[in-house]
Amino acid sequence: MSGKFITVEGGEGAGKTTQLAFMREVLERAGCRVTSTREPGGTALGEEIRSLLLDHRHDGMALATETLLMFAARAEHLERVIRPALAAGRWVLCDRFTDATYAYQGGGRGLPPERIAILEDWVQGGLRPDLTLVFDVPVAVGLERAGRRGAADRFEREEKVFFERIRAVYLDRARRDPGRCRIVNADRPVEAVRTEVEAILAGWLERG
Amino acid sequence: MSGKFITVEGGEGAGKTTQLAFMREVLERAGCRVTSTREPGGTALGEEIRSLLLDHRHDGMALATETLLMFAARAEHLERVIRPALAAGRWVLCDRFTDATYAYQGGGRGLPPERIAILEDWVQGGLRPDLTLVFDVPVAVGLERAGRRGAADRFEREEKVFFERIRAVYLDRARRDPGRCRIVNADRPVEAVRTEVEAILAGWLERG
Repeated sequence: MSGKFITVEGGEGAGKTTQLAFMREVLERAGCRVTSTREPGGTALGEEIRSLLLDHRHDGMALATETLLMFAARAEHLERVIRPALAAGRWVLCDRFTDATYAYQGGGRGLPPERIAILEDWVQGGLRPDLTLVFDVPVAVGLERAGRRGAADRFEREEKVFFERIRAVYLDRARRDPGRCRIVNADRPVEAVRTEVEAILAGWLERG
Repeated sequence: MSGKFITVEGGEGAGKTTQLAFMREVLERAGCRVTSTREPGGTALGEEIRSLLLDHRHDGMALATETLLMFAARAEHLERVIRPALAAGRWVLCDRFTDATYAYQGGGRGLPPERIAILEDWVQGGLRPDLTLVFDVPVAVGLERAGRRGAADRFEREEKVFFERIRAVYLDRARRDPGRCRIVNADRPVEAVRTEVEAILAGWLERG
């Protein structure tokens, strides 16, 4: 079985981190070799770009700049980590990918999706995730969970309406692309979410 | 008189820095208010991106990443410095701009110019320099001059053939766009180059 590219998306406090660890376990139990990674980041250079993006000193960063930095980190990530892993037959489990750019820079900040699509094609060519799990929680719930984690970064300090727009884009994209995307109701106890995630992955693994 | 956007291009050791200072003097003597800036950089964030680009630790950086970082710095530079200065009627004198991307990432490293043109349009919209001076010296002369300046950065350590390709792209682009570009033979004493630069600017200023 060749490797698949699975991405996990969701707003603040959707519980991605916990579920990513669990997804890795499920895949490994099924005999998959798994590469876990995240965006923006995933490489040494990508992590440096990530820190530029999250730094409060850069609050006035132009939207075009922010988006190009996201795709710069993504280009490095694809060339150094994702494509080599897939080529070696590994499964790639990635915490956020280009759907997040549509959600945050598009929905959140107002960059037209056609502008994002140009960079998506430029950087990725034809590569798209095979499966994307969108962890969905009401914004108030997610922000309350995220608030427990301490100091907010440049994205986390935005207004609630910003996160509502992000959520709306995630849900809209997932509904338009049901072959690739699954929406997981993450406003439930962690065990219930795990059960659904396991069922989704089991179905996917069966399809081969 | 509204502000104009003037860029200065050229390979290593072409004497740009000296001539930029002189160009500023000429323009100011003619009553222009001048903003001098440079790429990659020109803003606090741009300078941080510049240092990522020049750092030896990132020698294996993917070409797509390098190009996107260049355009990220450029997007910030345009929004924070270049467009506001032009809007305020100032002249902008910029040490390298997008011709350098065609020369270095295109000619030097082999990125197809059509790929660069997509990002140029994405970042700049319709904005192009009004005047571009390309300072041209034979590669061996330029490298010998640049060698006197101490430690080489990530670009300066490339092979001579890399710089030959850069020079060829600069000359080709300048010849194809004579309305915007002037090639200045910089393989002459600094005073002779100054005289030509002054004549070019005088002609430009007369045209208004």
